[in-house]
Amino acid sequence: MADPTGPDQAHMARAVELAALGRGTTSPNPVVGCVITSASGEVVGEGYHAYAGGPHAEIAALSQAGELARGGTAYVTLEPCDHTGRTGPCSEALLAAGVARVVHAVADPNPRAGGGADRLRAHGVTVEQGLLAERAEAVNIEWLTSVRLGRPYVTWKFAATLDGRSAAADGSSQWITSAEARADVHRLRAEADAIVAGIGTILADDPRLTARPTLDLTADRAPEGAPGPGKRLLRVVVDADGRTPPTARVLDGQAPTLVAVADDADARPDADLVRLPRTEHGLDLRALLKELAGRGVVSVFLEGGATLAGSFLRDGLIDRVVAYLAPAFLGEGRAAVGPAGVGTIAGIHRWHYQDIRLIGPDLRIIAHPLEMKER
Amino acid sequence: MADPTGPDQAHMARAVELAALGRGTTSPNPVVGCVITSASGEVVGEGYHAYAGGPHAEIAALSQAGELARGGTAYVTLEPCDHTGRTGPCSEALLAAGVARVVHAVADPNPRAGGGADRLRAHGVTVEQGLLAERAEAVNIEWLTSVRLGRPYVTWKFAATLDGRSAAADGSSQWITSAEARADVHRLRAEADAIVAGIGTILADDPRLTARPTLDLTADRAPEGAPGPGKRLLRVVVDADGRTPPTARVLDGQAPTLVAVADDADARPDADLVRLPRTEHGLDLRALLKELAGRGVVSVFLEGGATLAGSFLRDGLIDRVVAYLAPAFLGEGRAAVGPAGVGTIAGIHRWHYQDIRLIGPDLRIIAHPLEMKER
Ligand SMILES: NC(=O)c1ccc[n+]([C@@H]2O[C@H](COP(=O)([O-])OP(=O)(O)OC[C@H]3O[C@@H](n4cnc5c(N)ncnc54)[C@H](OP(=O)(O)O)[C@@H]3O)[C@@H](O)[C@H]2O)c1
Ligand SMILES: NC(=O)c1ccc[n+]([C@@H]2O[C@H](COP(=O)([O-])OP(=O)(O)OC[C@H]3O[C@@H](n4cnc5c(N)ncnc54)[C@H](OP(=O)(O)O)[C@@H]3O)[C@@H](O)[C@H]2O)c1
Repeated sequence: MADPTGPDQAHMARAVELAALGRGTTSPNPVVGCVITSASGEVVGEGYHAYAGGPHAEIAALSQAGELARGGTAYVTLEPCDHTGRTGPCSEALLAAGVARVVHAVADPNPRAGGGADRLRAHGVTVEQGLLAERAEAVNIEWLTSVRLGRPYVTWKFAATLDGRSAAADGSSQWITSAEARADVHRLRAEADAIVAGIGTILADDPRLTARPTLDLTADRAPEGAPGPGKRLLRVVVDADGRTPPTARVLDGQAPTLVAVADDADARPDADLVRLPRTEHGLDLRALLKELAGRGVVSVFLEGGATLAGSFLRDGLIDRVVAYLAPAFLGEGRAAVGPAGVGTIAGIHRWHYQDIRLIGPDLRIIAHPLEMKER
Repeated sequence: MADPTGPDQAHMARAVELAALGRGTTSPNPVVGCVITSASGEVVGEGYHAYAGGPHAEIAALSQAGELARGGTAYVTLEPCDHTGRTGPCSEALLAAGVARVVHAVADPNPRAGGGADRLRAHGVTVEQGLLAERAEAVNIEWLTSVRLGRPYVTWKFAATLDGRSAAADGSSQWITSAEARADVHRLRAEADAIVAGIGTILADDPRLTARPTLDLTADRAPEGAPGPGKRLLRVVVDADGRTPPTARVLDGQAPTLVAVADDADARPDADLVRLPRTEHGLDLRALLKELAGRGVVSVFLEGGATLAGSFLRDGLIDRVVAYLAPAFLGEGRAAVGPAGVGTIAGIHRWHYQDIRLIGPDLRIIAHPLEMKER
């Protein structure tokens, strides 16, 4: 068995670190990291998956290791794939390199790609699973969620005062949270594949909904060592009646934009349109997420407003919240979160805190639902 | 000068610890701690002020030290008093004991008691001020504030969801925060001299507003080593029109209760009444605090509800907030904080965080106003 305290652990921890380098650029693929040791236990190769179409982590690490991989061990954060996609199966590459042992942290939940462990075992390779599974799961949670649930991982962000307000009584709101908090939002946004906002926010604030404003969008391939081609975040507007004005900044052509309208909408927006069924509270958000998954969106950054966030809450479609709370009070004004289907206290949405820290003068709170109501 | 890293610092740190033992039981007096070292630098006496009428910290420490205080140093968290109240002036006691040096952290801001340092100096004692002043100030902040501002130190407590709500749409609210958080509230309440609530809260929840339900109220003197006689928290209801029902639990006689009514009120409550002027938003809260100060109240625990808390915020009369935020969302329902005089974002009440921690599953946030608007 993989030793949970010795060198095995150290190599897998390094593989998780490598995997993290791919965060935000590998969709629709997972982030994966790999460390190869020689037969005598020395590290002879490291690799990670940097972007879809680029080499898988195992291939990158094996090509560094060359002949030194023979008789050695491969530490991989995710079970090696067994299918031929844009690249050949990693299981075969590991066999061809003569690796004697494969330690992977998390099994591949994807029925198309799974099975690498079985093929390796069938060819006499020792295969062990589960070392640092929790860490490897966390670094890849967006992709794992999207495969398990068939919809993107949803991060909901909101900013508010300590009393839960996002604008003063007259509607003014610039700025409640600090520049540091806003920079942190940009960083998290950039890790997502799509940003979703309601038509209320578009009409009120006319936001650009872009991240990484300095990104070079013309490069379509990463230079050696860089994390991959520039990714353009998909902007998504939830707009049942197609009220997005042609002059809206989200239609500026700087990044792709999808406007979700109702089946029956008299849609005018000059944008990529998707038609969805209506439900009691607006567009069917489950159908929206399914549509996005079909377009390769693994993670969604939900930016509000209050009404749309309330609907995602009601439908149990949020995996994590990132709340920025300014040390301030308004007493009245717009609530940061809208109706979420709770009539009485027994229906309260109970979550749990995962991470609490100060970002500049503000508090950043990351929390998760206690149970996914949807699951 | 007092050495900020050596033994001086250690002795003053101990004096601050001793002072803290008196927190919650010394009103209307300050908390004070004292350490006496002999001429050769050994600790020969320790003391703290435990309750009004009991010995001052210096006297307690000197009586332990006896003859060993001669030629030694007294470390005191607050400048020794120079006036004859229930006990003789500490400055004289220190002189009589032959102490050669007095190090105190914070000057006495009280004009009646101040001047101890001058008298000591006039008699040839070396007097130094300022060592660990910040810590000594923090442990005694309620009393220092009450002397400086002529009104009690006000701690405002509220409990809410992450979206700032304290009840669901139908008014139900038991329990948003955890048993651990509620126990913490009781602990903080017990440190105050008075608990203040609005008539809205009395009518809605009929609370007892007591702390320390197991306290022995019959003891009027503390046993050796105990923190002093049982203190009964004053319960205060802000009730302009005297609507407190005779059956209200706050009128159960288990602790003194003061009902603040308007000058012109047709007051019926069978309780200790105080008549106050009306302002635009209800009773004059400044006048209420002044009245409480006159009754020896050094610290107030403001328990709500939303309307009254908003008024205290508007008037700049809050020194600290203790907010318990449950990891939960309601989306609608009663806001935890009511109108606080902010029309536009420029008028936002800006605070700063002092302490953030988890209490059970909930977040406890302590914050202070950036500037006291009132000052
Ligand atoms: N505090 C923050 O972090 C933050 C972040 C972003 C925005 N905001 C603020 O939020 C405000 C806008 O919020 P808002 O609540 O008015 O609008 P919103 O949440 O941005 O959009 C709500 C609108 O989306 C449409 N919609 C379609 N399907 C829906 C569904 N299933 N559930 C809910 N809505 C659906 C509805 O309009 P149709 O029926 O026309 O489709 C609905 O009125 C802005 O003023 C903005 O400044 C705050
Ligand atoms: N989340 C929490 O931590 C917490 C804590 C306590 C209570 N609560 C909840 O809060 C609710 C009650 O809140 P509430 O807002 O209705 O009532 P409230 O704040 O308890 O009391 C407000 C009333 O106090 C009187 N008042 C007198 N002078 C005032 C002044 N200067 N400013 C403001 N009010 C003044 C007014 O009535 P008159 O004109 O008749 O005097 C006013 O309507 C309850 O349901 C309770 O459960 C929550």
